[in-house]
Amino acid sequence: MVLATTMQAGEVLTPLELRRQIRSGNHKTTTAGQALGHLQGNLVILPADWALDFAIFCQRNPKPCPLLAISDIGDPVLPSLGEDLNLCSDLPKYRIWENGVLRAEVHDISDIWQGDFVAFVIGCSFSFEEALINSGLGVRHIEEGSEGSMYITNIATKKAGAFEGSLVVSMRPYTEANAIRAVEITGRFPMAHGAPVHFGDPSKIGVADLSEPDFGVAVTFHEDEMPVFWACGVTPQVVVKNAKPPICITHAPGHMVVTDLPSQGSV
Amino acid sequence: MVLATTMQAGEVLTPLELRRQIRSGNHKTTTAGQALGHLQGNLVILPADWALDFAIFCQRNPKPCPLLAISDIGDPVLPSLGEDLNLCSDLPKYRIWENGVLRAEVHDISDIWQGDFVAFVIGCSFSFEEALINSGLGVRHIEEGSEGSMYITNIATKKAGAFEGSLVVSMRPYTEANAIRAVEITGRFPMAHGAPVHFGDPSKIGVADLSEPDFGVAVTFHEDEMPVFWACGVTPQVVVKNAKPPICITHAPGHMVVTDLPSQGSV
Repeated sequence: MVLATTMQAGEVLTPLELRRQIRSGNHKTTTAGQALGHLQGNLVILPADWALDFAIFCQRNPKPCPLLAISDIGDPVLPSLGEDLNLCSDLPKYRIWENGVLRAEVHDISDIWQGDFVAFVIGCSFSFEEALINSGLGVRHIEEGSEGSMYITNIATKKAGAFEGSLVVSMRPYTEANAIRAVEITGRFPMAHGAPVHFGDPSKIGVADLSEPDFGVAVTFHEDEMPVFWACGVTPQVVVKNAKPPICITHAPGHMVVTDLPSQGSV
Repeated sequence: MVLATTMQAGEVLTPLELRRQIRSGNHKTTTAGQALGHLQGNLVILPADWALDFAIFCQRNPKPCPLLAISDIGDPVLPSLGEDLNLCSDLPKYRIWENGVLRAEVHDISDIWQGDFVAFVIGCSFSFEEALINSGLGVRHIEEGSEGSMYITNIATKKAGAFEGSLVVSMRPYTEANAIRAVEITGRFPMAHGAPVHFGDPSKIGVADLSEPDFGVAVTFHEDEMPVFWACGVTPQVVVKNAKPPICITHAPGHMVVTDLPSQGSV
């Protein structure tokens, strides 16, 4: 199981220890399976004159964009999410976007942080996947060691200013009985995208072919399984790309903000 | 029971009908007890250059400031909350604040709406009070026909920009058994301030004398009852007063935004 393979006995790091490792350049890979039991988050950094519309966008679209925190203007330190948590240095990999185009991937953004930057930390699915696994349901793409399948739907997000676009969903295959359990379990994690947005016939949400995901890779279906779709944290990245702000910094996929907050019950 | 006295048989208005009555000047009084079963909200309107910090404040303080909606910049129409809902004309009474000082109360703000205004609609306690009454618990200040007791606590809100101040709470007396039920019931309404923030000894949250509320009037305690305290929608008004923006418009107490959203399950 991938969630566990990156850890070996005796080297389970606390979130703070992991962030210190990342900051010192000793951990540059995915945060999947790290600091289990703690919320991780997507990162979107925008200049202040773009940030109000993006805050409105997140308020209007809580399933793809559940807000864990917004930074003060110009301040990369987020004490509400963790001890000594600095968004300039504590993620293993960042993406830098200019006018909606990906320009670079870097391991630290201290030298390009601007005084007008506002950082948004948005819940991600790691927390509910941990709960699904702990409940014995399994998560197929984790079992298969992949990042899973994500699809662009025909469901429009609720526009705010220049921020608009289609909802992106992640998909996990389950039997009917397990789909019901998965709804119950993930519904308890509104800050990690919450309950699914659809199950069954993919064409009803504009997905033509499950074997050709728009992001990630296809996963195997077992007998009697149907696709179950959740709102996905890739949505804000697509929406920001559409809006073409002059500068935007996000996490690189899988290289998340690791918080001190427990996965369940903290929000 | 006050919630019902403003209605008589045959004149129960839908939220839309009530908003039309308000807009045409035929309903200028409280919205308490009106359009039962639908969410009502507090209103805070600020210029765009103050709105980002206030959005951050609300994100950081979801118990006193659960965000039902944020308007587009300059647009007083909020389709996500109701059909033909115009924030300039559809509240029975508004308060106009300049530099933190209350300057006027008016019934319509169409003539002073600005192109840079952003409106925030914040959940209010009417929804959970309706649920408490429907569960047989009763709400003392409604039984007594008053607006209830509100107190400034020593609990600091989480500051954002110029917005900061103490949490204001509303108080309702209950026995231990009913306090437990009240926690269960109101916990289901996170968009209406949710579960209480404290019960029992008021001095623990900096309230010296229950008989002298900072807002509203004292309510009667019956034998074996303790005070139960909820985060209150007066908090954002106090915080905005502290921040002293050049202009701010809010609802007048009890004269709320009436939405089409069902009280329970819609958010």
